[in-house]
Amino acid sequence: MSLGHVSLVGAGPGDPDLWTVKAARYVRDADVVFYDALVDARALRALTNAPCFCVGKRGGRRSVSQETIQRLMIRAARRGQRVVRLKGGDPFVFGRGGEEALALRVAGVPFDVVPGVSSAVAAPASAGIPITHRGLASAVLTVSGHDFGVFERAIGAIAPNGLTLVVLMGLAARPAIVATLRQRGWRADTPAAIVCGATTPEAFTWTGTIAHLAQAELPAAPPGVIVIGEVVRLRDAIGLEGFRLNAEATLPAEAGSYV
Amino acid sequence: MSLGHVSLVGAGPGDPDLWTVKAARYVRDADVVFYDALVDARALRALTNAPCFCVGKRGGRRSVSQETIQRLMIRAARRGQRVVRLKGGDPFVFGRGGEEALALRVAGVPFDVVPGVSSAVAAPASAGIPITHRGLASAVLTVSGHDFGVFERAIGAIAPNGLTLVVLMGLAARPAIVATLRQRGWRADTPAAIVCGATTPEAFTWTGTIAHLAQAELPAAPPGVIVIGEVVRLRDAIGLEGFRLNAEATLPAEAGSYV
Repeated sequence: MSLGHVSLVGAGPGDPDLWTVKAARYVRDADVVFYDALVDARALRALTNAPCFCVGKRGGRRSVSQETIQRLMIRAARRGQRVVRLKGGDPFVFGRGGEEALALRVAGVPFDVVPGVSSAVAAPASAGIPITHRGLASAVLTVSGHDFGVFERAIGAIAPNGLTLVVLMGLAARPAIVATLRQRGWRADTPAAIVCGATTPEAFTWTGTIAHLAQAELPAAPPGVIVIGEVVRLRDAIGLEGFRLNAEATLPAEAGSYV
Repeated sequence: MSLGHVSLVGAGPGDPDLWTVKAARYVRDADVVFYDALVDARALRALTNAPCFCVGKRGGRRSVSQETIQRLMIRAARRGQRVVRLKGGDPFVFGRGGEEALALRVAGVPFDVVPGVSSAVAAPASAGIPITHRGLASAVLTVSGHDFGVFERAIGAIAPNGLTLVVLMGLAARPAIVATLRQRGWRADTPAAIVCGATTPEAFTWTGTIAHLAQAELPAAPPGVIVIGEVVRLRDAIGLEGFRLNAEATLPAEAGSYV
Protein backbone atom coordinates (compact mmCIF):
# COMPACT_ATOMS: atom_id res chain seq x y z
CA MET A 1 0.00 0.00 0.00
CA SER A 2 1.35 3.40 -0.89
CA LEU A 3 2.03 6.05 1.69
CA GLY A 4 -0.51 8.85 1.98
CA HIS A 5 0.08 12.52 2.49
CA VAL A 6 -0.78 15.19 5.04
CA SER A 7 -1.52 18.84 4.25
CA LEU A 8 -1.35 21.38 7.05
CA VAL A 9 -3.85 23.91 5.76
CA GLY A 10 -4.78 27.36 7.05
CA ALA A 11 -8.52 28.04 7.07
CA GLY A 12 -8.31 31.77 7.74
CA PRO A 13 -10.12 33.79 10.39
CA GLY A 14 -13.62 32.30 10.14
CA ASP A 15 -15.55 33.08 6.94
CA PRO A 16 -15.07 30.10 4.59
CA ASP A 17 -15.05 32.63 1.76
CA LEU A 18 -11.56 33.49 3.04
CA TRP A 19 -10.25 29.96 2.57
CA THR A 20 -7.69 29.94 -0.20
CA VAL A 21 -8.58 28.32 -3.51
CA LYS A 22 -5.97 25.68 -2.69
CA ALA A 23 -7.47 24.99 0.74
CA ALA A 24 -10.91 24.48 -0.78
CA ARG A 25 -9.54 22.08 -3.38
CA TYR A 26 -7.55 20.13 -0.79
CA VAL A 27 -10.67 19.76 1.37
CA ARG A 28 -12.70 18.63 -1.63
CA ASP A 29 -10.12 15.96 -2.52
CA ALA A 30 -9.38 14.79 1.03
CA ASP A 31 -9.93 11.27 2.34
CA VAL A 32 -10.14 12.52 5.91
CA VAL A 33 -10.14 15.95 7.56
CA PHE A 34 -9.06 16.87 11.08
CA TYR A 35 -10.26 20.39 11.83
CA ASP A 36 -10.02 22.98 14.57
CA ALA A 37 -13.06 24.19 16.49
CA LEU A 38 -13.01 27.62 14.81
CA VAL A 39 -13.30 26.15 11.32
CA ASP A 40 -16.75 26.44 9.70
CA ALA A 41 -17.94 22.82 9.88
CA ARG A 42 -20.95 23.44 7.65
CA ALA A 43 -18.80 24.78 4.83
CA LEU A 44 -16.47 21.85 5.33
CA ARG A 45 -19.21 19.26 4.99
CA ALA A 46 -20.66 21.08 1.99
CA LEU A 47 -17.35 20.61 0.19
CA THR A 48 -16.54 17.01 1.02
CA ASN A 49 -18.12 13.68 1.92
CA ALA A 50 -14.91 12.55 3.61
CA PRO A 51 -15.08 11.94 7.36
CA CYS A 52 -14.34 15.19 9.21
CA PHE A 53 -13.21 15.15 12.84
CA CYS A 54 -13.16 18.20 15.10
CA VAL A 55 -9.98 18.01 17.15
CA GLY A 56 -9.83 21.62 18.28
CA LYS A 57 -10.26 23.38 21.55
CA ARG A 58 -13.74 23.76 22.96
CA GLY A 59 -14.30 26.29 25.72
CA GLY A 60 -10.58 26.74 26.18
CA ARG A 61 -9.99 23.01 26.61
CA ARG A 62 -8.40 20.94 23.92
CA SER A 63 -10.76 18.09 23.17
CA VAL A 64 -8.00 15.96 21.70
CA SER A 65 -4.37 16.21 22.84
CA GLN A 66 -1.72 17.50 20.45
CA GLU A 67 0.01 14.10 20.53
CA THR A 68 -3.22 12.32 19.63
CA ILE A 69 -3.89 14.67 16.72
CA GLN A 70 -0.45 13.93 15.39
CA ARG A 71 -0.87 10.18 15.88
CA LEU A 72 -4.22 10.23 14.07
CA MET A 73 -2.77 12.10 11.09
CA ILE A 74 0.22 9.81 10.84
CA ARG A 75 -1.90 6.68 11.11
CA ALA A 76 -4.27 7.86 8.37
CA ALA A 77 -1.40 8.78 6.07
CA ARG A 78 0.20 5.39 6.64
CA ARG A 79 -3.06 3.83 5.51
CA GLY A 80 -2.54 5.68 2.24
CA GLN A 81 -5.04 8.47 2.86
CA ARG A 82 -4.88 12.09 1.76
CA VAL A 83 -5.18 13.84 5.11
CA VAL A 84 -6.12 17.49 5.50
CA ARG A 85 -5.34 19.13 8.82
CA LEU A 86 -7.46 22.28 8.67
CA LYS A 87 -6.34 24.89 11.17
CA GLY A 88 -7.79 28.29 12.05
CA GLY A 89 -5.85 31.24 10.62
CA ASP A 90 -2.41 30.28 9.37
CA PRO A 91 -0.81 26.98 10.46
CA PHE A 92 2.48 28.64 11.36
CA VAL A 93 1.18 31.63 13.39
CA PHE A 94 0.57 30.38 16.93
CA GLY A 95 -1.04 27.33 15.37
CA ARG A 96 1.41 24.65 16.53
CA GLY A 97 1.89 23.88 12.85
CA GLY A 98 5.63 23.68 13.38
CA GLU A 99 5.16 20.93 15.94
CA GLU A 100 2.85 19.00 13.64
CA ALA A 101 5.28 19.40 10.73
CA LEU A 102 8.15 18.08 12.87
CA ALA A 103 6.09 15.10 13.99
CA LEU A 104 5.20 14.24 10.39
CA ARG A 105 8.80 14.59 9.32
CA VAL A 106 9.99 12.30 12.10
CA ALA A 107 7.35 9.77 11.13
CA GLY A 108 8.48 9.85 7.52
CA VAL A 109 5.09 11.02 6.28
CA PRO A 110 5.18 13.35 3.26
CA PHE A 111 3.45 16.63 3.95
CA ASP A 112 3.01 20.14 2.71
CA VAL A 113 1.89 23.42 4.22
CA VAL A 114 -0.80 25.67 2.75
CA PRO A 115 -0.62 29.17 4.27
CA GLY A 116 -3.86 30.81 5.28
CA VAL A 117 -5.17 34.28 6.05
CA SER A 118 -3.93 34.96 9.58
CA SER A 119 -6.42 36.30 12.10
CA ALA A 120 -3.65 38.57 13.35
CA VAL A 121 -4.04 40.52 10.10
CA ALA A 122 -7.60 39.77 9.01
CA ALA A 123 -9.41 40.41 12.28
CA PRO A 124 -8.23 44.04 12.50
CA ALA A 125 -8.74 44.46 8.73
CA SER A 126 -12.30 43.17 8.90
CA ALA A 127 -13.00 45.84 11.52
CA GLY A 128 -11.51 48.56 9.32
CA ILE A 129 -8.20 48.79 11.16
CA PRO A 130 -5.04 48.63 9.03
CA ILE A 131 -2.27 47.26 11.27
CA THR A 132 0.28 49.38 9.41
CA HIS A 133 -0.24 52.90 8.12
CA ARG A 134 2.23 55.53 6.92
CA GLY A 135 3.04 57.94 9.69
CA LEU A 136 1.13 55.97 12.35
CA ALA A 137 2.73 52.52 12.52
CA SER A 138 5.46 50.96 10.42
CA ALA A 139 5.96 47.90 12.57
CA VAL A 140 3.67 45.31 14.12
CA LEU A 141 4.35 43.08 17.09
CA THR A 142 2.20 39.96 17.11
CA VAL A 143 2.18 38.08 20.38
CA SER A 144 0.11 35.45 22.13
CA GLY A 145 -1.61 36.37 25.40
CA HIS A 146 -2.20 32.71 26.20
CA ASP A 147 1.00 32.24 28.17
CA PHE A 148 1.31 35.32 30.32
CA GLY A 149 5.02 34.90 31.05
CA VAL A 150 5.70 34.93 27.33
CA PHE A 151 3.58 38.02 26.86
CA GLU A 152 5.30 39.85 29.68
CA ARG A 153 8.75 39.11 28.25
CA ALA A 154 7.71 40.28 24.78
CA ILE A 155 6.28 43.55 26.11
CA GLY A 156 9.31 44.04 28.32
CA ALA A 157 11.46 43.84 25.21
CA ILE A 158 9.78 46.67 23.29
CA ALA A 159 9.57 50.39 23.81
CA PRO A 160 6.05 51.67 24.55
CA ASN A 161 3.76 53.30 22.00
CA GLY A 162 6.04 52.85 19.00
CA LEU A 163 4.23 50.19 17.02
CA THR A 164 0.99 48.28 16.57
CA LEU A 165 0.53 45.49 19.08
CA VAL A 166 -1.66 42.55 18.07
CA VAL A 167 -2.46 40.11 20.86
CA LEU A 168 -3.98 36.75 20.00
CA MET A 169 -5.68 34.60 22.64
CA GLY A 170 -5.48 37.42 25.16
CA LEU A 171 -9.09 38.14 26.12
CA ALA A 172 -9.00 36.30 29.44
CA ALA A 173 -5.71 37.91 30.42
CA ARG A 174 -6.81 41.49 29.72
CA PRO A 175 -6.34 42.84 33.27
CA ALA A 176 -2.79 41.47 33.39
CA ILE A 177 -2.07 42.66 29.84
CA VAL A 178 -3.16 46.19 30.67
CA ALA A 179 -1.23 46.20 33.94
CA THR A 180 1.93 45.11 32.11
CA LEU A 181 1.52 47.73 29.39
CA ARG A 182 0.92 50.55 31.88
CA GLN A 183 3.86 49.45 34.00
CA ARG A 184 6.07 49.47 30.88
CA GLY A 185 5.07 53.03 30.11
CA TRP A 186 2.26 52.66 27.58
CA ARG A 187 -0.07 55.66 27.87
CA ALA A 188 -3.50 55.03 29.39
CA ASP A 189 -5.11 56.75 26.40
CA THR A 190 -3.44 54.45 23.86
CA PRO A 191 -6.23 53.42 21.45
CA ALA A 192 -7.28 49.79 21.66
CA ALA A 193 -9.75 47.50 19.92
CA ILE A 194 -11.12 44.03 20.49
CA VAL A 195 -12.35 42.17 17.43
CA CYS A 196 -14.39 39.07 18.28
CA GLY A 197 -15.59 36.45 15.82
CA ALA A 198 -14.01 38.34 12.95
CA THR A 199 -15.51 37.67 9.51
CA THR A 200 -18.31 35.55 11.02
CA PRO A 201 -21.97 36.53 11.48
CA GLU A 202 -21.20 36.99 15.21
CA ALA A 203 -18.49 39.58 14.53
CA PHE A 204 -18.29 42.26 17.21
CA THR A 205 -15.79 45.09 17.60
CA TRP A 206 -15.15 47.18 20.68
CA THR A 207 -12.92 50.25 20.55
CA GLY A 208 -11.64 52.46 23.32
CA THR A 209 -8.34 52.91 25.13
CA ILE A 210 -6.19 50.55 27.15
CA ALA A 211 -7.56 52.25 30.28
CA HIS A 212 -10.90 50.55 29.56
CA LEU A 213 -9.72 47.44 27.74
CA ALA A 214 -10.05 45.12 30.72
CA GLN A 215 -13.60 46.29 31.50
CA ALA A 216 -14.92 46.16 27.92
CA GLU A 217 -18.12 44.15 27.85
CA LEU A 218 -18.09 41.57 25.12
CA PRO A 219 -20.77 39.25 23.81
CA ALA A 220 -20.23 35.57 24.60
CA ALA A 221 -17.52 35.39 21.97
CA PRO A 222 -14.54 33.25 22.84
CA PRO A 223 -11.95 34.03 20.16
CA GLY A 224 -10.90 37.64 19.96
CA VAL A 225 -7.98 39.66 18.70
CA ILE A 226 -6.76 42.69 20.63
CA VAL A 227 -5.23 45.57 18.66
CA ILE A 228 -3.36 48.29 20.51
CA GLY A 229 -1.91 51.40 18.92
CA GLU A 230 -2.64 54.58 17.03
CA VAL A 231 -3.92 52.71 13.96
CA VAL A 232 -7.10 51.93 15.89
CA ARG A 233 -8.02 55.60 15.45
CA LEU A 234 -8.29 55.02 11.69
CA ARG A 235 -11.32 52.80 12.17
CA ASP A 236 -13.79 55.68 12.34
CA ALA A 237 -12.23 57.49 9.40
CA ILE A 238 -12.17 54.37 7.25
CA GLY A 239 -15.67 53.48 8.43
CA LEU A 240 -15.97 50.03 6.89
CA GLU A 241 -19.03 49.18 8.92
CA GLY A 242 -22.13 51.27 8.45
CA PHE A 243 -20.65 53.13 5.50
CA ARG A 244 -22.63 56.32 4.84
CA LEU A 245 -22.38 58.38 1.72
CA ASN A 246 -22.11 61.87 3.16
CA ALA A 247 -20.22 61.45 6.39
CA GLU A 248 -17.45 63.89 5.55
CA ALA A 249 -17.83 65.42 9.01
CA THR A 250 -15.59 62.77 10.57
CA LEU A 251 -12.91 62.74 7.87
CA PRO A 252 -9.29 63.56 8.60
CA ALA A 253 -8.26 66.74 6.79
CA GLU A 254 -5.22 65.27 5.03
CA ALA A 255 -7.34 62.68 3.24
CA GLY A 256 -9.18 65.41 1.32
CA SER A 257 -6.37 65.87 -1.18
CA TYR A 258 -7.12 62.54 -2.83
CA VAL A 259 -10.46 63.45 -4.33
CA MET B 1 -26.68 56.01 -12.89
CA SER B 2 -26.01 54.07 -9.72
CA LEU B 3 -22.77 54.34 -7.82
CA GLY B 4 -20.30 51.49 -8.23
CA HIS B 5 -18.19 49.83 -5.62
CA VAL B 6 -14.50 49.23 -4.93
CA SER B 7 -13.04 46.13 -3.29
CA LEU B 8 -9.53 46.30 -1.87
CA VAL B 9 -8.50 42.69 -2.27
CA GLY B 10 -5.40 40.84 -1.06
CA ALA B 11 -3.91 38.50 -3.66
CA GLY B 12 -1.52 36.70 -1.33
CA PRO B 13 2.20 36.08 -1.81
CA GLY B 14 2.27 35.06 -5.49
CA ASP B 15 0.71 31.69 -6.30
CA PRO B 16 -2.86 32.39 -7.52
CA ASP B 17 -3.83 29.16 -5.77
CA LEU B 18 -3.42 31.18 -2.57
CA TRP B 19 -6.01 33.75 -3.57
CA THR B 20 -9.02 33.46 -1.31
CA VAL B 21 -12.22 32.04 -2.73
CA LYS B 22 -13.73 35.50 -2.26
CA ALA B 23 -10.87 37.18 -4.14
CA ALA B 24 -11.31 34.83 -7.08
CA ARG B 25 -15.07 35.48 -7.19
CA TYR B 26 -14.58 39.25 -6.97
CA VAL B 27 -12.10 39.13 -9.84
CA ARG B 28 -14.48 37.01 -11.92
CA ASP B 29 -17.34 39.47 -11.35
CA ALA B 30 -15.32 42.69 -11.73
CA ASP B 31 -15.92 45.34 -14.37
CA VAL B 32 -12.35 46.58 -14.08
CA VAL B 33 -9.25 45.43 -12.18
CA PHE B 34 -6.28 47.51 -11.03
CA TYR B 35 -3.51 45.16 -9.96
CA ASP B 36 -0.05 45.29 -8.45
CA ALA B 37 3.04 44.11 -10.32
CA LEU B 38 3.44 41.02 -8.12
CA VAL B 39 -0.02 39.72 -8.96
CA ASP B 40 -0.14 36.81 -11.43
CA ALA B 41 -1.50 38.54 -14.53
CA ARG B 42 -2.07 35.30 -16.42
CA ALA B 43 -4.28 33.90 -13.67
CA LEU B 44 -6.08 37.19 -13.57
CA ARG B 45 -6.88 37.20 -17.27
CA ALA B 46 -7.91 33.54 -17.14
CA LEU B 47 -10.61 34.47 -14.62
CA THR B 48 -12.02 37.62 -16.16
CA ASN B 49 -12.52 39.39 -19.46
CA ALA B 50 -12.73 42.74 -17.70
CA PRO B 51 -9.98 45.26 -18.49
CA CYS B 52 -7.05 44.73 -16.12
CA PHE B 53 -4.50 47.48 -15.52
CA CYS B 54 -1.15 46.95 -13.86
CA VAL B 55 -0.56 49.92 -11.57
CA GLY B 56 2.17 48.43 -9.39
CA LYS B 57 5.84 49.09 -8.91
CA ARG B 58 8.24 47.89 -11.55
CA GLY B 59 11.91 47.70 -10.64
CA GLY B 60 11.33 49.61 -7.43
CA ARG B 61 9.61 52.48 -9.25
CA ARG B 62 5.90 52.95 -9.05
CA SER B 63 4.58 53.07 -12.59
CA VAL B 64 1.44 54.92 -11.53
CA SER B 65 1.37 57.29 -8.57
CA GLN B 66 -0.67 56.43 -5.51
CA GLU B 67 -2.89 59.47 -6.13
CA THR B 68 -3.53 58.39 -9.72
CA ILE B 69 -4.47 54.85 -8.64
CA GLN B 70 -6.96 56.30 -6.22
CA ARG B 71 -8.36 58.70 -8.80
CA LEU B 72 -8.77 55.87 -11.33
CA MET B 73 -10.64 53.70 -8.83
CA ILE B 74 -12.91 56.52 -7.77
CA ARG B 75 -13.69 57.52 -11.34
CA ALA B 76 -14.55 53.94 -12.34
CA ALA B 77 -16.79 53.49 -9.30
CA ARG B 78 -18.57 56.76 -10.07
CA ARG B 79 -19.31 55.37 -13.51
CA GLY B 80 -21.14 52.55 -11.74
CA GLN B 81 -18.43 49.92 -12.15
CA ARG B 82 -17.49 47.11 -9.79
CA VAL B 83 -13.81 47.86 -9.26
CA VAL B 84 -11.34 45.33 -7.88
CA ARG B 85 -8.06 46.70 -6.54
CA LEU B 86 -5.92 43.56 -6.37
CA LYS B 87 -2.91 44.01 -4.13
CA GLY B 88 -0.01 41.68 -3.32
CA GLY B 89 -0.23 40.00 0.09
CA ASP B 90 -2.77 41.62 2.39
CA PRO B 91 -4.08 45.12 1.62
CA PHE B 92 -3.49 46.33 5.18
CA VAL B 93 0.07 45.02 5.74
CA PHE B 94 2.43 47.58 4.24
CA GLY B 95 0.08 47.71 1.27
CA ARG B 96 -1.10 51.32 1.55
CA GLY B 97 -4.58 49.86 1.76
CA GLY B 98 -5.39 52.22 4.62
CA GLU B 99 -4.61 55.19 2.40
CA GLU B 100 -6.75 53.84 -0.42
CA ALA B 101 -9.61 53.13 1.98
CA LEU B 102 -9.43 56.68 3.34
CA ALA B 103 -9.45 58.12 -0.17
CA LEU B 104 -12.52 56.07 -1.11
CA ARG B 105 -14.28 57.07 2.07
CA VAL B 106 -13.59 60.74 1.43
CA ALA B 107 -14.88 60.38 -2.12
CA GLY B 108 -18.08 58.77 -0.85
CA VAL B 109 -17.43 55.58 -2.80
CA PRO B 110 -18.70 52.39 -1.12
CA PHE B 111 -15.93 49.87 -0.61
CA ASP B 112 -14.98 46.74 1.23
CA VAL B 113 -11.73 45.03 2.15
CA VAL B 114 -10.92 41.39 1.45
CA PRO B 115 -7.98 40.22 3.56
CA GLY B 116 -5.32 38.12 1.85
CA VAL B 117 -2.53 35.77 2.79
CA SER B 118 0.26 38.07 3.93
CA SER B 119 3.73 37.46 2.52
CA ALA B 120 5.06 38.21 6.00
CA VAL B 121 3.59 34.88 7.09
CA ALA B 122 3.41 32.87 3.88
CA ALA B 123 6.90 33.47 2.55
CA PRO B 124 8.58 31.96 5.63
CA ALA B 125 5.93 29.20 5.77
CA SER B 126 6.49 28.28 2.14
CA ALA B 127 10.17 27.80 2.94
CA GLY B 128 9.36 25.58 5.93
CA ILE B 129 9.95 28.24 8.57
CA PRO B 130 7.21 28.71 11.18
CA ILE B 131 7.45 32.30 12.42
CA THR B 132 6.28 31.20 15.86
CA HIS B 133 7.21 27.99 17.63
CA ARG B 134 6.87 26.93 21.25
CA GLY B 135 10.09 27.48 23.12
CA LEU B 136 11.77 29.30 20.22
CA ALA B 137 9.65 32.36 19.43
CA SER B 138 6.34 33.48 20.86
CA ALA B 139 6.33 36.91 19.30
CA VAL B 140 6.92 38.26 15.80
CA LEU B 141 7.95 41.76 14.80
CA THR B 142 7.01 42.59 11.22
CA VAL B 143 8.69 45.69 9.85
CA SER B 144 9.36 47.29 6.50
CA GLY B 145 12.96 47.77 5.40
CA HIS B 146 11.90 50.21 2.71
CA ASP B 147 12.28 53.33 4.85
CA PHE B 148 15.49 52.84 6.77
CA GLY B 149 14.74 55.43 9.43
CA VAL B 150 11.56 53.56 10.27
CA PHE B 151 13.43 50.27 10.43
CA GLU B 152 16.11 51.70 12.70
CA ARG B 153 13.53 53.08 15.13
CA ALA B 154 11.67 49.75 15.24
CA ILE B 155 14.84 47.79 15.93
CA GLY B 156 15.95 50.35 18.48
CA ALA B 157 12.70 49.73 20.33
CA ILE B 158 13.15 45.98 20.80
CA ALA B 159 15.54 43.86 22.81
CA PRO B 160 17.86 41.71 20.69
CA ASN B 161 17.34 38.00 20.00
CA GLY B 162 14.02 37.69 21.79
CA LEU B 163 11.59 37.24 18.90
CA THR B 164 11.23 36.50 15.21
CA LEU B 165 11.95 39.47 13.01
CA VAL B 166 10.28 39.58 9.58
CA VAL B 167 11.52 42.33 7.28
CA LEU B 168 9.55 43.12 4.15
CA MET B 169 11.07 45.14 1.30
CA GLY B 170 14.49 45.00 2.94
CA LEU B 171 16.74 43.26 0.40
CA ALA B 172 18.41 46.42 -0.88
CA ALA B 173 19.03 47.69 2.64
CA ARG B 174 20.64 44.49 3.93
CA PRO B 175 24.04 46.00 4.83
CA ALA B 176 22.36 48.74 6.86
CA ILE B 177 19.92 46.27 8.42
CA VAL B 178 22.72 44.00 9.57
CA ALA B 179 24.76 46.93 10.88
CA THR B 180 21.78 48.15 12.90
CA LEU B 181 21.08 44.71 14.34
CA ARG B 182 24.71 44.12 15.34
CA GLN B 183 24.94 47.57 16.88
CA ARG B 184 21.80 46.84 18.90
CA GLY B 185 23.30 43.66 20.28
CA TRP B 186 21.94 40.94 17.99
CA ARG B 187 24.43 38.06 17.87
CA ALA B 188 26.36 37.59 14.62
CA ASP B 189 25.33 33.92 14.59
CA THR B 190 21.60 34.71 14.75
CA PRO B 191 19.99 32.50 12.10
CA ALA B 192 18.60 34.33 9.08
CA ALA B 193 16.78 33.45 5.88
CA ILE B 194 15.85 35.23 2.69
CA VAL B 195 12.82 33.93 0.83
CA CYS B 196 12.53 35.31 -2.69
CA GLY B 197 9.57 34.86 -5.03
CA ALA B 198 7.76 32.79 -2.41
CA THR B 199 5.11 30.39 -3.76
CA THR B 200 6.07 31.17 -7.36
CA PRO B 201 8.05 28.96 -9.76
CA GLU B 202 11.05 31.27 -9.16
CA ALA B 203 11.03 30.64 -5.40
CA PHE B 204 14.49 30.67 -3.86
CA THR B 205 15.51 30.45 -0.22
CA TRP B 206 18.86 31.33 1.30
CA THR B 207 19.66 30.48 4.91
CA GLY B 208 22.63 31.42 7.05
CA THR B 209 23.32 33.90 9.81
CA ILE B 210 23.07 37.65 9.99
CA ALA B 211 26.87 37.74 9.67
CA HIS B 212 26.43 36.68 6.02
CA LEU B 213 23.01 38.14 5.29
CA ALA B 214 24.30 41.17 3.41
CA GLN B 215 26.59 39.08 1.19
CA ALA B 216 24.06 36.36 0.32
CA GLU B 217 23.94 35.94 -3.42
CA LEU B 218 20.42 35.93 -4.72
CA PRO B 219 18.98 35.21 -8.14
CA ALA B 220 17.55 38.22 -9.93
CA ALA B 221 14.52 38.15 -7.68
CA PRO B 222 13.27 41.52 -6.61
CA PRO B 223 10.72 40.80 -3.88
CA GLY B 224 12.08 38.98 -0.88
CA VAL B 225 11.22 38.49 2.76
CA ILE B 226 13.96 38.39 5.38
CA VAL B 227 13.40 36.22 8.46
CA ILE B 228 15.72 36.60 11.43
CA GLY B 229 15.62 34.47 14.56
CA GLU B 230 15.96 30.99 16.01
CA VAL B 231 12.92 29.68 14.11
CA VAL B 232 15.03 29.67 10.94
CA ARG B 233 16.84 26.66 12.42
CA LEU B 234 13.62 24.65 12.15
CA ARG B 235 13.76 24.76 8.38
CA ASP B 236 16.14 21.82 8.06
CA ALA B 237 14.26 19.76 10.63
CA ILE B 238 10.90 20.44 8.99
CA GLY B 239 12.44 19.89 5.59
CA LEU B 240 9.54 20.97 3.41
CA GLU B 241 11.62 21.14 0.27
CA GLY B 242 13.26 17.96 -0.95
CA PHE B 243 11.46 15.83 1.60
CA ARG B 244 13.18 12.46 1.92
CA LEU B 245 11.65 9.49 3.62
CA ASN B 246 14.56 8.35 5.77
CA ALA B 247 16.33 11.51 6.74
CA GLU B 248 16.08 11.04 10.50
CA ALA B 249 19.73 11.92 10.85
CA THR B 250 18.99 15.64 10.98
CA LEU B 251 16.00 15.48 13.32
CA PRO B 252 15.91 17.25 16.67
CA ALA B 253 15.77 14.71 19.50
CA GLU B 254 12.67 16.16 21.16
CA ALA B 255 10.58 15.60 18.07
CA GLY B 256 10.98 11.82 18.38
CA SER B 257 8.41 11.58 21.15
CA TYR B 258 5.58 12.30 18.74
CA VAL B 259 5.77 9.08 16.78
